[in-house]
This record gives sequence, structure tokens and C-alpha cells, in this order.
Amino acid sequence: MSEHRPDGPLEPDELEGPAFSVDHLHREGLLEPPAGGETVHDGSGRVDLSFAVQARDGGSSQRGARVPPGVSVFDAASWNGIAIDSTCGGHGTCRKCKVRVASAGTPPPVTRHDERTFSADQLAEGWRLACLVRATHDLAVDVPPLTTRPKAATVGVGRQVILRPAVQKRYVELVEPTLSDQRTDLVRLREAIDDLELTVDLEVLRRLPVVLREADFKVTAVVVDEALIDVEPGDTTGVRYALAFDLGTTTVVATLLDLESGTPVAVASRLNRQQPFGGDVITRISATMLDPDALGRLQAAAGRSLSELAAEVCGESGVDPGHVYEVALAGNATMTALALGIAPEPLGVAPFVMGTAAYPELLAADLGLSLHPRARATVFPSLGAYVGGDIVAGMLATGMDRDKRVRLLVDVGTNCEIVLSDGDRIVATAAPAGPAFEGGAIRCGMRADEGAVEVVRLGDAGVELGVIGDVEPRGLCGSGLVDVVAELVRVGLLDATGRFVPDEAAAEIAPALADRLTKVGQERVFVLHRPEPDAPTEESVYLSQRDVRELQFAKAAISTGWTLLLEELGLAEADVQQVLLAGSFGSYLSPAAAIRIGLVPSLPVLRIVSAGNVAGEGAKMVLLSLRERAGAEALLEEVTYVELSDRADFNDRFVEQLAF
Amino acid sequence: MSEHRPDGPLEPDELEGPAFSVDHLHREGLLEPPAGGETVHDGSGRVDLSFAVQARDGGSSQRGARVPPGVSVFDAASWNGIAIDSTCGGHGTCRKCKVRVASAGTPPPVTRHDERTFSADQLAEGWRLACLVRATHDLAVDVPPLTTRPKAATVGVGRQVILRPAVQKRYVELVEPTLSDQRTDLVRLREAIDDLELTVDLEVLRRLPVVLREADFKVTAVVVDEALIDVEPGDTTGVRYALAFDLGTTTVVATLLDLESGTPVAVASRLNRQQPFGGDVITRISATMLDPDALGRLQAAAGRSLSELAAEVCGESGVDPGHVYEVALAGNATMTALALGIAPEPLGVAPFVMGTAAYPELLAADLGLSLHPRARATVFPSLGAYVGGDIVAGMLATGMDRDKRVRLLVDVGTNCEIVLSDGDRIVATAAPAGPAFEGGAIRCGMRADEGAVEVVRLGDAGVELGVIGDVEPRGLCGSGLVDVVAELVRVGLLDATGRFVPDEAAAEIAPALADRLTKVGQERVFVLHRPEPDAPTEESVYLSQRDVRELQFAKAAISTGWTLLLEELGLAEADVQQVLLAGSFGSYLSPAAAIRIGLVPSLPVLRIVSAGNVAGEGAKMVLLSLRERAGAEALLEEVTYVELSDRADFNDRFVEQLAF
Repeated sequence: MSEHRPDGPLEPDELEGPAFSVDHLHREGLLEPPAGGETVHDGSGRVDLSFAVQARDGGSSQRGARVPPGVSVFDAASWNGIAIDSTCGGHGTCRKCKVRVASAGTPPPVTRHDERTFSADQLAEGWRLACLVRATHDLAVDVPPLTTRPKAATVGVGRQVILRPAVQKRYVELVEPTLSDQRTDLVRLREAIDDLELTVDLEVLRRLPVVLREADFKVTAVVVDEALIDVEPGDTTGVRYALAFDLGTTTVVATLLDLESGTPVAVASRLNRQQPFGGDVITRISATMLDPDALGRLQAAAGRSLSELAAEVCGESGVDPGHVYEVALAGNATMTALALGIAPEPLGVAPFVMGTAAYPELLAADLGLSLHPRARATVFPSLGAYVGGDIVAGMLATGMDRDKRVRLLVDVGTNCEIVLSDGDRIVATAAPAGPAFEGGAIRCGMRADEGAVEVVRLGDAGVELGVIGDVEPRGLCGSGLVDVVAELVRVGLLDATGRFVPDEAAAEIAPALADRLTKVGQERVFVLHRPEPDAPTEESVYLSQRDVRELQFAKAAISTGWTLLLEELGLAEADVQQVLLAGSFGSYLSPAAAIRIGLVPSLPVLRIVSAGNVAGEGAKMVLLSLRERAGAEALLEEVTYVELSDRADFNDRFVEQLAF
Repeated sequence: MSEHRPDGPLEPDELEGPAFSVDHLHREGLLEPPAGGETVHDGSGRVDLSFAVQARDGGSSQRGARVPPGVSVFDAASWNGIAIDSTCGGHGTCRKCKVRVASAGTPPPVTRHDERTFSADQLAEGWRLACLVRATHDLAVDVPPLTTRPKAATVGVGRQVILRPAVQKRYVELVEPTLSDQRTDLVRLREAIDDLELTVDLEVLRRLPVVLREADFKVTAVVVDEALIDVEPGDTTGVRYALAFDLGTTTVVATLLDLESGTPVAVASRLNRQQPFGGDVITRISATMLDPDALGRLQAAAGRSLSELAAEVCGESGVDPGHVYEVALAGNATMTALALGIAPEPLGVAPFVMGTAAYPELLAADLGLSLHPRARATVFPSLGAYVGGDIVAGMLATGMDRDKRVRLLVDVGTNCEIVLSDGDRIVATAAPAGPAFEGGAIRCGMRADEGAVEVVRLGDAGVELGVIGDVEPRGLCGSGLVDVVAELVRVGLLDATGRFVPDEAAAEIAPALADRLTKVGQERVFVLHRPEPDAPTEESVYLSQRDVRELQFAKAAISTGWTLLLEELGLAEADVQQVLLAGSFGSYLSPAAAIRIGLVPSLPVLRIVSAGNVAGEGAKMVLLSLRERAGAEALLEEVTYVELSDRADFNDRFVEQLAF
């Protein structure tokens, strides 16, 4: 999605790549103009793609994807685990990513590359190169069977990685021993694979003599990095899988990767089973301090979350869990510690210290997973107690260490991680944004689930709401919260200090909206949706004065964070060439609204890019490429962690940032 | 006991060091001359030492040791786990090994060093330097409390090793973290121990944050090699132990070492619990080929043997098993494979191949041991299927790789390992000697246990027997077998082909013995002991014609082995400067008898040295010294394994060697 190239400075025209704000789409006439009065439609700014994926054996399967408009069909497929032929990784050069696109509206435009690739008849039938088709409205996409095994894969934010997984398979036919060649079984195998310095697990040695002889000395060595983890009878080189986990405090996402092709074969997510211990990291850390058994139970709950997802993706794709040889896990420092059973107490209290930033060689079994019994685990290291492995993965996925532009990565959540790169130095910090963005502490707050208002437009004609699932609004999720506050500031119903204007002023400023300004108890509120015309305000979906304050504190914490980072590198707001909004919340945030309330620097809206689940993308990258894995490790050295709570000027800056 | 120095060629006078043959002792008048007729006494050629060991706290304990005559009191104590002060390692230079010796007979001679060390009164009271007192007859020895912690220890055959165990403890007082010093717990610890490149076990990381804070950041790091295996609260540097195992097919021996002093604190042995699966390696390998569960059961039985011994030595010495941080194990290739659960089948059938010669980093738990949960295990690598880790340990203990002399190491047993060094190259082989030396396949054969005849002298006056435990003879053990055959050959009752001479010839050659030559069934036998004068011959202890054949085949296999090794290095028998007889059997063999039947090269008897349990000594050495451990690994490269069954000329040589 981002236009940057890993290895060079950005071309000027790339700066103005697509950004997926609703404003942008309005300008381009891609969304219907707001209707009068209050309307409820799927105004989420998302489009639905329906993929019919043909298999080599003649079968086909149906898969759906919901993405921000403007995403290329190739990326939309790739993010959702649908493999499309490609050798250039979606850069419009290999002309292999042929798909047939059908849409209810205008067919996608024909590019020069399409013309060179397809006949006129094919173009008329809807054939296009998937990497050049922008999903600006709902599309049906036919994906032909894969003809090539890609040598590279596109992951992260437009990052193309050369496939060089740590998991390797080597089929060997060994010479059988004789009295004049009594080399040991292991030496025999090692000498057949002499480009690697193999280390060997005891369990492999235990079975090696039997496996070699039962298989007539024709076997496949399974190697992770340089560890020989198994010797399988016969030639099994075509079968190797790995699992990428994004272990969030709230949600856990698993992607099963086929390491032969570099493509995802299944994706699944579910709530973290640690939820009953508390919704955020602090309550879970506290649990371990109050109850000596809690750490063990939290560790088991994490393991169960991961195991259930592993079973789900393997089941869905028909992959034997014993053929999953490696996992990668990206999580914040607390989630990572809990998943590994490392006492998390010091993370929860000043001076916020980790037991360790990086980990020794780990087995998937150390995370409670039952895959291949000696499957390895790569766990992302953390930069600090509140800039965890998920952000390190995100930096990798977004190429923070490779891009020469001035870029800001903001992962918005209860704990908001902020990373700034000037193309040379990288600084990172964490800002305690509080629960506003997760819907917590907000009167009508809720998670970004069915019924949550996620888009709000205020106009002369009234209120327009975008609701997840296109149903009756039930509450306000984080992006809706930002939207409504931004809109209220824009129309003038909230002043710069974050206070609702008096009723008289409201009637004058926005006559169509003024009657929505009322009270619940002693508190002033703005009503977004009233289930029945005469229903009591308490039963409405509304925004309260206190909600505004919560958001104000959150955005002040975040903007103080990046302000201080900009100072650290001697930069001004306007120097920032790209802002990446990451995390399940950030990706759904309207860039225009984020700018308007000051959550991100005041920049042309096209510089604000929705980066998606960057942690999960980073986890995939380290499984696909040893070079990227080395990059992730190097980040520990390259990034300077800035502790905000240690800064004497933090409070002053914070107060400065409170205003809208 | 060998006089060789690890680092230089032998001085001429050292060649004639003590050898513990009965002949030698007869010559020196140290044994009573043989009495007339048949006498039964403890003629084993062993002396009993009784040690009264004073502890620092004023207590004392009584310990016994039974050793070949001529061993120094210092070595006898050291071999039996009794610590005596010494910094020179028993070489007569430090004058620290002061003991008080009492004997029924003549007091031990006073040496120049004793005169310089003790007053006349002290000398009169029996004070001597323990390394200069030769145990030529039974002695009572008072050992004063230890005053020094030796920096070196004497182990193996006179090898002095500088104490540098892989197990290290480091007490550190860490600076507590602050907001301006948020180094992780692990980095904090690593930077305090920056001369080591520590690797860390996950289990240590799990507890590290809690241990550091509960102990106010004052902790002791437990390191094995460079692996951080634990962090203990407070200063525990004085407490570190390791366990050396000699895992024999028949007997398992454990020595608990105090790594602070380098001295053994307890020794124990017991039968290998794998015995029910068969007495030798082949029957145990066969068991795993017939029954898929047998490998698991054999592994468990080995683990139980080791665990019981570990419990015994820890219990006896009051050492917490959690303070045993490392074990070393020396065993033959089959015992080692079974203990680790490695499928042993290829070891049992031609072309006799090992799964592996060396092992990855192992935990004591991999051997079924419950010591410190992350205690490491060092397992001796094997050179071949029948030249195992026990022999590699033996080479280390005897300094085969360091000594410049031409030396032959023979470990006598069912499988006989033979190593020859010319001071530069080392060659090794295995000879299938069969069960004769273990008492198996011999009519009146038995293990070297109470009632076993282990010394036989034939004279004009009749038969003189040395019996273990000084009781009524019950059977013939391996050394007795060799002795009686050698004596029968010497007096002429057996001819060079191994046949008993006819009765008429016998009456002429040895009138006092001829009536002992009789028959059991159709087979001619020589009666050694008849329980009652008129008891039937079947109930006697006797040697049969077939027994002689068994021994003939065994000695032929062995002598063929060293003959071919001598040829391999272009040497003649007379070039051999020292023969080391090792193993529980070899150590008790009379050198003179071994020469007489051709089991060892025909050399001056003083060149034949009893080397004791060299496997166990090697295991101790690798625990005490990283340098020696590296030496053991290097042996794998330095030694050339010669496969006898591959040699076309083996059978011809074997037949040549059959004659006495």
C-alpha cells in the first residue's frame, strides 16, 4: 500500500500515493454525497471483494475480503491469504498476476501494462493485472490457478521479500555404510548437507538410525536455521509450513504460511483468552502480583489462544500440524512475557524494566503449541516495557529502518507506540493514551464490533453515520469517537478547549444540529442516534462532555509523544513525509479526523496512510526471510528508546497539546 | 600411579616404577612365601587401608580402601574420594599432604621430604607425607582437616589437572534500575559478568525478575560452560558439585565431586539395572530389535541406575541434589546410546555403525536424572561401535594423547578395547574376547565377588589360592582363570597348544599336582579346591579343558588386536614402554600371568601397570577441567579407528596367536 521502496529514496510522485480517507473518496466522487437528515448505511469506507480461487486440480473456493478503498486487488488478496501468481511482488513489472474482475459498476481502467498483457477480447472480459486494479468499489475477482512458485513475496506495507525461510528441507540419498565406510549416521547426513553447519536435537538422534534404515537411506532433512529438527522418510521437500502470530492484548491473529510459495493459506483470529484477567496489560500484571498462581494461568491462557488458532488454520487448510516447523510471534512486552511464562512484575511498576529484551532459542512448545514437536519459535524482541515486539515487527513491516523519508509510525491503542525515523536515526516511545480508543471509559463506547458507529459526518442536513455491519447503531468505537469529535470541532459545536458551546451559540452556529445538544444528568451530551424519536436520551448513542475529555487526554498524550520525538531528531511537523497509522484501531481511523483533532501532525491528508496489522505482517516476514529476521534483530541496536515519564518537560507539553 | 608426566618424555628411571604384580612383591619380600600344600588366605595382592578423616568442624569419619600394594596413600585416598591437602597433586613437592600412619608392622620409611617437613617427635608418632608413603601392607591413616582449597587435583593415572570446572559461580551485586537506567534484568546481569558470553535458559528468564528483586539484586549466577542455568539469591559461590558416572554394561559407578576443592566427596556403585535384558551389549541390542518397547525400558533402566546412585552419593554426603550442576558420563557406545534413548540397532550388526559419535548439548535430565533441573550433561563421544566413550575417557585419564612413550592401553572384558600410541599417532581397535573374563562360559566361572579365586600359585608343595573375602573358594573369576592357566603352562601341565598333558607325563612333571588332573564326564579338568576330601569332582572348583580353550580364544583375539595395531604403527612388541591394564577385570589381572599366556606383549613385568577404573577417572577429569574436556573432544580427531573384522589377515593372525 505504501509506495516506498525498501532500498532507495522516494520519487516525488510517490509522495502523493493513495490514502484511504473518506474525504479523499468524496473528492473523487467515489462515495455517494451525504444524504439529508440522519442516514444509516455502510459508510465505513470499506469495499468488499469476493475472490473465486481456482486450484491446480480444477477445484475452486470462494473467499471474501473487506479492505480500505484504493488497495490493489493483489494486496487485498495477499493480506487475506489468497495467492496470486507474481514474481515482482505486486510492482506491475512481471505481468503474471492475471485476474478477471467483474463489478456492478464501471469496469476497472485499462493500464498500459494491461494492454501489453491481454488481448482486446480478454480486456473486454475483465482480465486485468491484479496489482494495477484499485479496489474502489465492490468487486468479484476470478483468480486462476497458480502456475509459478514465487521466489519473492509481498508482505508488510508494500515490502517485497525474497523467499529465504529459516525452514529448509533437503532431500538426500545417502550411501549406505560398509565395513570400510563406518561413518556414523549423523556424519553421513552432515556430509551430504555440507553447506550448513547443522546442530542436532537429541530427539532426532534418537530416531535417526531407525528412520535412515527404514527409508533405505533416502530421507528429507528438516532444518530450521541450522538446527536439524527432523529427518523424514522419502522426499517431503514440497511440504513446509510456518505460523505467524500477532498476539494482541485483546485479539490474537494467526496466519498459516506455505513456505514453498511464500503465500498465506489460512488466517484466523479470536479474542485473547487472558481477557478474564483484565482488559489491559496493567490489570494482568497486577493479577500476577496478587496471586502466585496467576502467571501460570495467564501463560496457559495465552498458550490456549495460540493453540486454538493453530488448530483452526491447520484444520481449515488441511495442513498437518506436524508439518508446521516454525512459528513467529509478535506481541507487546507484557503479552510476550506472559506467553513465555516470564514474571512480568517489573513491567508494571516504575522504572518499567523488562526481564529481557530478546530470547534464547525457543521451541513452539515453549509457547504451549503442539505443532511439529521440535518446531522452533521466533519471538520478536522488545525495545522497552511499552515499545514491544509488536512494534518491532511493525517497524520491519513498514520498513522504518530502510526508508529514507521522514516517517512517523503511530500504533494507536490504550498504550500508544510512536516511532519516528528521519531516514537515518530512529527514535521510539510509548504514550499512555488510556482506554478511550478501545471504547473503554467512554459512556457509549464499545469495541469496533457490529453496531459500532465508526464514521460520523455532520452537515447542514444533519448527521450521517457509518455503522459496522450496516445495522442499528449500538455505540461508538474509537474511530467513530475521533470522527464525531473532529466533526463537532469543525462545525464549531466544540470549542478549542474541548467544551461544548452554550445552547444559544449552538443554535446560531449549526441550527440543524443544535437540538442534539442536551443533557444526561448534569452532563452535556451530543446525541448521535436515538432509537425511537421519543426515547430518553440515556438510551441514545451519544457523546458526553467527559468523553471529549477522555479523548482529549489520549490525543494529548500521543501528540506529546511525537512532538518530543520530532524535537529529539530536530524536525518540525511539516518535515514528516508519511504518517503510518497502525493497529486494529489506527487502521480504521479517518486520517482527516485524526489531523483535525491533532492526533497526528497537521499534514496533507494524503500523507496519512493506513498501515493495517503491521505486527502480523512483520511476523510473516521473519518466517519468509532470514534477511528480514536479521533486520528485526538489528532494530534493537538501531532504535533509541525515549522514556517519556523521565522527561521533566512532559507535563508542560501535555498541557499544550490538550487543545484541539 | 603411572610415573609419566603429561607434558614431557619419561625420565629413564621412571620406566621402572612400581608395578603391582605378586611376583614383584615376592621378590621384595613383602608377601609371605607360599606355604606348603593348599593354603587359603587373602593372597589377592591387595592391602587394606583404614582412614580416619577429621572434618573442619571437629567431627571425624571412618573410611576403608582396598588397593594394590605399592599405591601411595595419597592416591589410595584420592581414588576413594577422601580429600587430603595438596597443592602439587601428590608429586612430593608441596609438603601439604600430612597424615599420621599406624601399622601393625614396620612403620613406613622416612624420606628426605618427611625429614624436612616433620619434627623427630612427629616422625616417631607416624606423621608422613601421604604421597610418599607406599601402602605395602595394611595401614591405619589419620587424615587431618583440610586447610587449603587445592587449585589442582590428581585424577586418572597420575594426571594432575588444574581446576577449571565448566561449572562456575559468580556472586554479583547489581545496580538497581531507575528511569534513566532501564537496562533489562538480563543485560544488567550480563554486563556484570562481561568476561563470559552467556547464553540463557528460558527457565532462568522466567524467574529472573522475581529472584533479582527478592534478593535485592544480590545474586549468584550459576554458569556451566557459558550457559546461565540459574540465578540463586545471595552468595552461594561456595556450593557447587558435579557427578561423574562410569556406566558399565555390568556395573555403574558414581563419584560426587566438590568442584570448589576438586575432591570426591562420595563414591558408590551398583549393578546396571539393564541386567534383566541380558548380560552383554549384544543381547540388549537384540532386545530392542525384537520388542519396540524395549528401547524405552532399557533407557528407563539406565536412568534408574544413574538416579539411584545419584541419590546415594548425595544422601551419604548430605549434598542437596539441586546443587549438582553438571554430570559427566563415560560408557561404551551401546550403553551410551541406550542411556540417551538412541536406537542402538546399527551397533549390533555389520557394518557396526553408530548413529552418532558425539552429542549435542545435553541436560542431566536427558539421562533421567533429577539434579539441578537445568544441570548439564557431558557424555563422552565414541570412536566406533566397539571403542566407546569409556575408552575415550580412559585415554584421557591415562594421558594417551600427551605421553611421548610407546604405550598400550588394554581394557579387558567381553569386548576388549585396545589403544596403541607411539607418542605421536594413536590407533585403536576392539577385539571380541567373549565372556571368559567375566566368568561366563567357564565351568566354575563367577564374577570377581566374595569366594572367587583371583590368584593361583602352583608349586612343588601344591596349590596356593588367593580368594576374595578370604573365605572358602566358590569359583574362578577372570584373573584367577588367567593365573591358573599361566601357572599350568609354567609348570608344564598344559602344553603350548593348550592341551592338558597325559596323566603319565603329568606325574613325571609335577608329582605334587598330578592327582588334581582328573575328569568330569569325558572332559579332563584340573581341580583347584575340593570342599571335602572325598567330595565328587563336580562339586570342586576346577578348570576344564574347554575353559582353557575359551581363554585361548579370548587371549588370541586380544593379542591379534594389539599385534595388528603394532604393525599399523610399524612397531615391535619390545618397543612398548608401558602397558596399561584397565577395566574392573584388567586392573586385577596379574601382570606376570598376563605376560605368560600372551595376553599382553612379552615385556619386563614392571612395564605392565594396573590402571584402575580409567573410564570413571576420565569422567571426573572433564568435570574438573575445561582443558581436559577439550582434550577428550580432540581425541575423536586424533585417534584412528582400525576395524579388525574388515582385515583379510585377521583369521590367520588369530590362529597364530592361539598358542600359549
